[in-house]
Amino acid sequence: MATLKQVAAHAEVSVQTVSNALNAPHRLRPDTLERVNRSIELLNYRPNRNARSLRTSAVELIGYCVPNWPNQTHLVMDQFLHALCAAAERTGRHILLFTAPPGVDGMPVYDDLHARRLVDGFVLSQTETHDPRHGWLKEQKIPFISFGRVWKETTQPGPWVDVDGAAGSAMAVRHLHDAGRRRIAFLSWPKSSGLAEDRLGGWRKACKELGLPTSGLSVRCREDSIAEGARATAELLDADPFLDGIVALSDILALGALRELGHRGLTPGVDVGVTGFDDSPLADVVSPGLTSLRQPMDDIAAELISILTDPDGPPDASTERLLHPELVIRGSSAPG
Amino acid sequence: MATLKQVAAHAEVSVQTVSNALNAPHRLRPDTLERVNRSIELLNYRPNRNARSLRTSAVELIGYCVPNWPNQTHLVMDQFLHALCAAAERTGRHILLFTAPPGVDGMPVYDDLHARRLVDGFVLSQTETHDPRHGWLKEQKIPFISFGRVWKETTQPGPWVDVDGAAGSAMAVRHLHDAGRRRIAFLSWPKSSGLAEDRLGGWRKACKELGLPTSGLSVRCREDSIAEGARATAELLDADPFLDGIVALSDILALGALRELGHRGLTPGVDVGVTGFDDSPLADVVSPGLTSLRQPMDDIAAELISILTDPDGPPDASTERLLHPELVIRGSSAPG
Repeated sequence: MATLKQVAAHAEVSVQTVSNALNAPHRLRPDTLERVNRSIELLNYRPNRNARSLRTSAVELIGYCVPNWPNQTHLVMDQFLHALCAAAERTGRHILLFTAPPGVDGMPVYDDLHARRLVDGFVLSQTETHDPRHGWLKEQKIPFISFGRVWKETTQPGPWVDVDGAAGSAMAVRHLHDAGRRRIAFLSWPKSSGLAEDRLGGWRKACKELGLPTSGLSVRCREDSIAEGARATAELLDADPFLDGIVALSDILALGALRELGHRGLTPGVDVGVTGFDDSPLADVVSPGLTSLRQPMDDIAAELISILTDPDGPPDASTERLLHPELVIRGSSAPG
Repeated sequence: MATLKQVAAHAEVSVQTVSNALNAPHRLRPDTLERVNRSIELLNYRPNRNARSLRTSAVELIGYCVPNWPNQTHLVMDQFLHALCAAAERTGRHILLFTAPPGVDGMPVYDDLHARRLVDGFVLSQTETHDPRHGWLKEQKIPFISFGRVWKETTQPGPWVDVDGAAGSAMAVRHLHDAGRRRIAFLSWPKSSGLAEDRLGGWRKACKELGLPTSGLSVRCREDSIAEGARATAELLDADPFLDGIVALSDILALGALRELGHRGLTPGVDVGVTGFDDSPLADVVSPGLTSLRQPMDDIAAELISILTDPDGPPDASTERLLHPELVIRGSSAPG
């Protein structure tokens, strides 16, 4: 087994440079990094994880709590986790998955993982209104980055990366408007959801800018289910027979809209254009396919990892990144 | 910060016993374990992960490769990961998540994680027909356990835990038969899928035992989509107007069956009873709810972790556990 010294001698660099190549590759010039990596490969050098983590304080394992909400559907969870792992691995790090009780009851688990040096920081997701985790971690000076904003806070308690839901709804409205739709409704969630208010606001603003009506055209669904999406769509169609577009807050609600249209003999994409949110696997298995707003998972993951593992130190509480979703157009809004 | 010695003195046991409490708690008598844990807590002792893993060869981190199949839906992925983490944590271990190219191209990643001692073993899932990973890991003497059998092998190349798909289909057939159904069809996948053949076989066997017809009552869907489930259901109903039950290989295919029944003015659960597989979040968001076979995730995870971390050594290649699914009954098969 080759040693660090032998690798350094072979690559004609210092031991510190080899260590940097392993732990902080961004500090090296690309040609130096390539030379060191070639020597590591040729000599079949395997850095020992235990020896390494005693020497450096760099983040090596990043904690992510796997959510367990029995009444929620995580239809893009595997996409997010894959992107997060791949982004961490590009920096030589890995994701440690763990479970914890929801809310503040779970904080001792985060504290213990960090105190035992099993992880050096956390990625949070599934943020909730008044989520207590961010403020708690900030107080304990434990590095973290949040995918998703904490709604209903005057100031954001920590760094975050999120997708611009308002911009997404506005994209969907403009897409339906371009296709000739003039009465575009919005299927929303209860008022307590900051995410729902954000997306609803984007629909309202875009409609106003385009001179489209909004009055009586938004319905709050009681839960994220196909049945509720269908019920709300029925309510809208009963009140307004000229309705020709529906922007739904989620793919699940959009599926409900598609079902209700079918029941009434209306063809999605022809009679009424429909869009969803998240571009979940469901969007592609229905017929016609569901036009939906895709969250840019690879970009989200890259931002999360880059901010959390910044070599200049733990992320500043004021760090914010708002990414744009992408509209994936299918037959539900544009018959082909 | 308390030391191991201080904990041992406080609990009036040897240092080895404290070490066992941390690394092999099953070796201790429950009352001893409780006394040591109380001392650990009172003295606020925090075992250092690095020091610990140099001392013991026990599995501490278990690797799990997060799948990335763009054309597959992992509707119960978050349930599986949560159960797996919780089971590992009950033994003091954690799950390290990683990415790897599919098939044999991914094996260097497994090898590297193990050689660098980042993980001490692997949990495999999403097994495929002729999956190369099991044989490769076995040859390298790297401990692993598979969730799912490798189909099309004369002997199983390693230990596995799986759910009895044939028994599940048979449960669904008997449930529909009890509700008075007499012409029960099966929606399947292409012949290349071992999982599909297993579930199809269970349907055929149960029908024969109950004296029910099977001829012309199974259809192979080209892919796992709602559209294909609907098309296959249309084909069945066109050929057999007396069809009164459908056992679908997946929840997605079952949703297609529900849609086609709706299109024809037939009521699921009243005119035709329908069942799915996996009890995914979808089963609960459609109306009527979809009767479906639930995989016992907590039991599966507990078996996987218990076999992989057996204190008597790495799992024997002949270890096999076949668990029964549970039929979750909703309106699609039993109107309420």
